[in-house]
Amino acid sequence: MRIGAIEAGGTKFVCGYGNEDGFIEDRISLPTGQPDQTLDEVIAYFQDKRVDCIGIGTFGPINIDPASPLYGYVTTTPKEGWARYPFLKKLKKEFHVPFGWDTDVNAAALGEATWGAAKGSDSCVYFTIGTGIGIGVYTEGKLVHGLVHPEGGHLLIRRHPHDEFVGSCPYHGDCLEGMASGPAIEKRWNIKGSDLGTNHSAWDIEAFYIGQAVTSAILMLSPKKIILGGGVMHQKQLFPLIRTEVQKNLNGYVSSEALLSDIDHYIIPPGLEDNAGLCGAMALGLQAFIQREIDE
Amino acid sequence: MRIGAIEAGGTKFVCGYGNEDGFIEDRISLPTGQPDQTLDEVIAYFQDKRVDCIGIGTFGPINIDPASPLYGYVTTTPKEGWARYPFLKKLKKEFHVPFGWDTDVNAAALGEATWGAAKGSDSCVYFTIGTGIGIGVYTEGKLVHGLVHPEGGHLLIRRHPHDEFVGSCPYHGDCLEGMASGPAIEKRWNIKGSDLGTNHSAWDIEAFYIGQAVTSAILMLSPKKIILGGGVMHQKQLFPLIRTEVQKNLNGYVSSEALLSDIDHYIIPPGLEDNAGLCGAMALGLQAFIQREIDE
Ligand SMILES: Nc1ncnc2c1ncn2[C@@H]1O[C@H](COP(=O)(O)OP(=O)(O)O)[C@@H](O)[C@H]1O
Ligand SMILES: Nc1ncnc2c1ncn2[C@@H]1O[C@H](COP(=O)(O)OP(=O)(O)O)[C@@H](O)[C@H]1O
Ligand SMILES: [Zn+2]
Ligand SMILES: [Zn+2]
Repeated sequence: MRIGAIEAGGTKFVCGYGNEDGFIEDRISLPTGQPDQTLDEVIAYFQDKRVDCIGIGTFGPINIDPASPLYGYVTTTPKEGWARYPFLKKLKKEFHVPFGWDTDVNAAALGEATWGAAKGSDSCVYFTIGTGIGIGVYTEGKLVHGLVHPEGGHLLIRRHPHDEFVGSCPYHGDCLEGMASGPAIEKRWNIKGSDLGTNHSAWDIEAFYIGQAVTSAILMLSPKKIILGGGVMHQKQLFPLIRTEVQKNLNGYVSSEALLSDIDHYIIPPGLEDNAGLCGAMALGLQAFIQREIDE
Repeated sequence: MRIGAIEAGGTKFVCGYGNEDGFIEDRISLPTGQPDQTLDEVIAYFQDKRVDCIGIGTFGPINIDPASPLYGYVTTTPKEGWARYPFLKKLKKEFHVPFGWDTDVNAAALGEATWGAAKGSDSCVYFTIGTGIGIGVYTEGKLVHGLVHPEGGHLLIRRHPHDEFVGSCPYHGDCLEGMASGPAIEKRWNIKGSDLGTNHSAWDIEAFYIGQAVTSAILMLSPKKIILGGGVMHQKQLFPLIRTEVQKNLNGYVSSEALLSDIDHYIIPPGLEDNAGLCGAMALGLQAFIQREIDE
């Protein structure tokens, strides 16, 4: 079986294919330009690849409600040309295979549950802490869409007592993304996150905020694993700090050994590392393929 | 078809049965005593009722992981005699019918999605704001269990600028339940919530906290309906105040008409009113019955 995958990002598109073990056999990367031109390149790539299905994990916001006439569209992005663009429709015209279509973070969550750090589990939450903060939610064996899709990056959080940064979110100021995204760190300290020393107090503040978001995820969703990815999480010293914050916040209330005594295996980095995006898209493709088989 | 139902509360048990339209045909209420004695009375009630299935929505915490040897047990409740009690096992010995078993709030969420305010929807979040605060989560057509079960009553929230109450949660002090439960209101104002005038500033503070919790539910889960029940929500003036808080918090970020222009039909009271608990348990029974048919 050959599973096609598209990891659609705001700056680059990665296309590739692989097998049902999550092994990637080929990939290319293209800069994200105008949508018609970018998708023509995507189509050209897949033309001779004979894939059995294609999964797309994309930047957004996007419409993922199959009952909507705008299903498969990018909706309100500020990215030039992409707002209200019929992304999925354009590809479906070219390739008559089952398509998986979801947010990049939902794709990452499914990829991790299929082949990565939450392998075999029917539940995980994936946070990406990068230019923005996004969450993918996989629970009871299903990706969560609901009304739109989860937008946990904009959670209201308590301010750290030593933090006076106003926050960088244009909508909310000091929401999670406004306080803890890569650009928020850079604005607060006037230096790139990657250039702050690993002992800098910035990371205590960062862990304080991410720890709150993880706590909220546990209380609202009770996931079986929480996976933290994205550029900021390259700062590996954050993991133990975040785990400590979460245990402090919960204060023993949720009585599960996973939280009380095994939290090092509960709040974890992505198992698929740099392949998380593309493997996530592959997992969406595989899911669509299997679903089609069940439906027929 | 006759669906048996048990609404198991910390102060009283309600047993009854009804049909697949959610119509309740009979019910009794008993005070919650020692578990063996209480369940003997429950068993006596159902002995001649010839129900096709039984649903149990119960206080907790309880074990709802079918893979666990402690599935069907009450776990760590301070309620005398009930901690580590094999609730479900005792009933299964007597009645050889499919059993549904879940938290009282998950039951209420499923009942509302089956016959109530979220009828026909595959997703809702049910909050109960009473002696404690609990949440039931139904998403993509499934009740969420995950690691344990959601415990959204203990969300960390931002303090209202005019509120100096320390909070009443023994675990967290000023978490949601510590600030917004019935007992928290009573402690803060030295008067029962039901005796505060409907114009009292207490309700602005209450709406501020519940509004934050509802906002977190929207951002983490994107539910299609949010249902607010429990004793405190008898204060109907809270609904418009909470809706305003939620719109202020989101500030237009989640672009859905349900939130932007139709929030009066999005954040709503339970459709099943005083039957929410018993109907919820019936919905669990019905679900178990249908699942059994699929499995066979
Ligand atoms: N090693 C690092 N330490 C701290 N921050 C980093 C590091 N690497 C990247 N970042 C930050 O992460 C953000 C980019 O996130 P990334 O997940 O790589 O991309 P994107 O979110 O745009 O898809 C930038 O704000 C960058 O400053
Ligand atoms: N009309 C009311 N206004 C405000 N608070 C109320 C009202 N009725 C009950 N409450 C409060 O709700 C709590 C009881 O919640 P309820 O949902 O009835 O029961 P429980 O949570 O114990 O199952 C009490 O703290 C009570 O003070
Ligand atoms: Zn924001
Ligand atoms: Zn608490």
